[in-house]
Amino acid sequence: MNILKKFKAAATLVVLVAVLAGCGKLNFSSDASSTTTGGSGTSTSKYQTTGSVNSDMYQGVIQNGSYKTSSARGLTIDTNTQGSNTYNIKSMESGLQSISMQHFSTSKYSLEEGQLLSTATAKSWLMRKAATTKSTALVSEGPDGLNPSQYQNGEKGAVIANFQTAKPEYLATILEQDYMQASGKSMKLGGISIALGMNEYYYYQKKQYGATYSTKISQTDLEKYGKQMAATVVKRIRKMSGVSSTTPIVVALYKNADQDSLVGGTFFASTTSESGNSLNSWKSINEKNQVLPVVENEKAVNSTVSNDFSNFSDAIENFFPTLAGVTAQTHYESGQLTGMNITINTQFYGLTEIESFTQYVATTAQKDLPSGAKIEIQIQSTGGIQAFVARESGEKAFYTHVFGSY
Amino acid sequence: MNILKKFKAAATLVVLVAVLAGCGKLNFSSDASSTTTGGSGTSTSKYQTTGSVNSDMYQGVIQNGSYKTSSARGLTIDTNTQGSNTYNIKSMESGLQSISMQHFSTSKYSLEEGQLLSTATAKSWLMRKAATTKSTALVSEGPDGLNPSQYQNGEKGAVIANFQTAKPEYLATILEQDYMQASGKSMKLGGISIALGMNEYYYYQKKQYGATYSTKISQTDLEKYGKQMAATVVKRIRKMSGVSSTTPIVVALYKNADQDSLVGGTFFASTTSESGNSLNSWKSINEKNQVLPVVENEKAVNSTVSNDFSNFSDAIENFFPTLAGVTAQTHYESGQLTGMNITINTQFYGLTEIESFTQYVATTAQKDLPSGAKIEIQIQSTGGIQAFVARESGEKAFYTHVFGSY
Repeated sequence: MNILKKFKAAATLVVLVAVLAGCGKLNFSSDASSTTTGGSGTSTSKYQTTGSVNSDMYQGVIQNGSYKTSSARGLTIDTNTQGSNTYNIKSMESGLQSISMQHFSTSKYSLEEGQLLSTATAKSWLMRKAATTKSTALVSEGPDGLNPSQYQNGEKGAVIANFQTAKPEYLATILEQDYMQASGKSMKLGGISIALGMNEYYYYQKKQYGATYSTKISQTDLEKYGKQMAATVVKRIRKMSGVSSTTPIVVALYKNADQDSLVGGTFFASTTSESGNSLNSWKSINEKNQVLPVVENEKAVNSTVSNDFSNFSDAIENFFPTLAGVTAQTHYESGQLTGMNITINTQFYGLTEIESFTQYVATTAQKDLPSGAKIEIQIQSTGGIQAFVARESGEKAFYTHVFGSY
Repeated sequence: MNILKKFKAAATLVVLVAVLAGCGKLNFSSDASSTTTGGSGTSTSKYQTTGSVNSDMYQGVIQNGSYKTSSARGLTIDTNTQGSNTYNIKSMESGLQSISMQHFSTSKYSLEEGQLLSTATAKSWLMRKAATTKSTALVSEGPDGLNPSQYQNGEKGAVIANFQTAKPEYLATILEQDYMQASGKSMKLGGISIALGMNEYYYYQKKQYGATYSTKISQTDLEKYGKQMAATVVKRIRKMSGVSSTTPIVVALYKNADQDSLVGGTFFASTTSESGNSLNSWKSINEKNQVLPVVENEKAVNSTVSNDFSNFSDAIENFFPTLAGVTAQTHYESGQLTGMNITINTQFYGLTEIESFTQYVATTAQKDLPSGAKIEIQIQSTGGIQAFVARESGEKAFYTHVFGSY
């Protein structure tokens, strides 16, 4: 567990860098214009795609010769530390892609990181609602804030007593994905997906440098406020340059895992705005994530899966006694296991040992782990990944790879 | 390059741990005896194998319910720092397996790490030859030492002037691999492979805590002394318990890369002892390893490969400007590229960016990199491996995997 936490700490740094490196330009063109590049005089499109390796993945868009990151991805504001769990960020990105696939097929659409929401816009939306923009150590507020005001009577009255529990910040992060369609020699924006990352646990301080408190937000409140915010977000995006009145906008509500979790959160509802400001009726999403082995008195989401995992890890720990630990992230949809990411930390390094271990892991996984679900196993040592074993969803055979060195 | 060096430093620590953890038991049984395990009263074999995932890989042997590491693997003695480059250790293990495959087919033989050479035996063989065992800060010597004596007239005279350059330590490491064959319900030793890791550069000190000097050993001397030592090693192994007069012993000579190299060394000769102490005639092995891009005034082993690699790395660096570096280990046999391990260090973390990048890397690799050879591409960020792209030898399509998180 310690190793996982260290990875998490390292990963957090990376995200901060990635966010700082983002540049917030809005540069959609809905016409098929192309620009001249290089000195050769040949006219080439300003858009390229990455090429595709797998029909289950979106091609990425390369614009004017370079990949464009999203400004808002992973962004949180100072007063809200919820989003700093990097598992949330990755799981949100991956989950929003899965939801988007139901609307935008991977064969017709390519994926570009969100270019509509600039850093400044995303920040202003994550604030608490207030007449004027003000940022203190404890509260960031502004006229575009989607989180509840700390004042009585909207933006004017006195500060509400215990406003941090009475009116917690429900919204922690916003993620935008742009789905691009070929249009002649160029590409145009074919659809937008937005995820609102909601706080299940809201962490706050009563005074600067003071103790951190947390309050749990009920599922009822998450749904109520999330859906209200979604309606506002669609209205605002609909008005942005490059978005037409009929550009489909998918909105999904995501519940962040708490800041100490070793697995990310889950989506709980989604809808689409086909045109204008109207939203289709909301669909519930029943997802669960759990780390195995389960800790203390936690109940397994699915006891069969949990037992299968125990058998698997017992088998490999018996034969290779120097393992430092076997853990798994599991993902369930409507109670069924759909994916499992296993990390095995080893203390060995020799190639022969890694090869033998990898083969034993693959044959044991085939025997002990649940069939059907997507499974990914990383075999790690202090020097980094040594081997990996994976089975795609619905397949029977495991792919194995031992990382070589000359 | 700095990042690679850090990895190397971390990996060095791991090897030291692995060596310390080794236990030097000699426990071959050439009969098909089996032991009773557990309380159930059923008789089960003391041997199991790991199961196989790939006909190009040996199954590993599990003995008495646990995997046995080799005591001698990666072992060096205090006075010889040459073996501390961990690239050498991995490349030696992998190369010795390749050579062994010509004698012991993966379908008939399973691989067990060497169990004949204990830590003490391997240490005593790596010493300089002397009448009695003595170990100082500068010289380890003993009666079984395979390295030249520091004394004039064999083991008796005065110390040779400049013995460290006149009579350098040619041998740095010994690696043993045991090839096991099914024998009824049990397994027996079917063949042995030994690699002698020779010093191309010998590092030494003239006084304790003094400066480190190095001397280059000529290819002629490496071959001459290596072949002499191989004959002695075969004689000694032939006498060990569990080795019959007809157990085939493959011996191969390996030239360690110098201690700062970012790629391991290469094998340059091999032979087999089919029975007794006789050796078949030696076969030359023409292998080269090189890190790309080539540094300073170094000449590319194969300029086509080097140019292809430049095109590949330029293409991906143009589109993803935040890459921290693209380097490759290349391996050539008789001048032909047979393998390429590419590491791409990135500064990004977002899943969408990694997915796009991975697809672009795979399509660019398909277009720019040499066909035929085995290619492995690791996409790394500070948080560890993010994705990987690989093509097996002789195949056309690249396999890609983006590491997920729930």
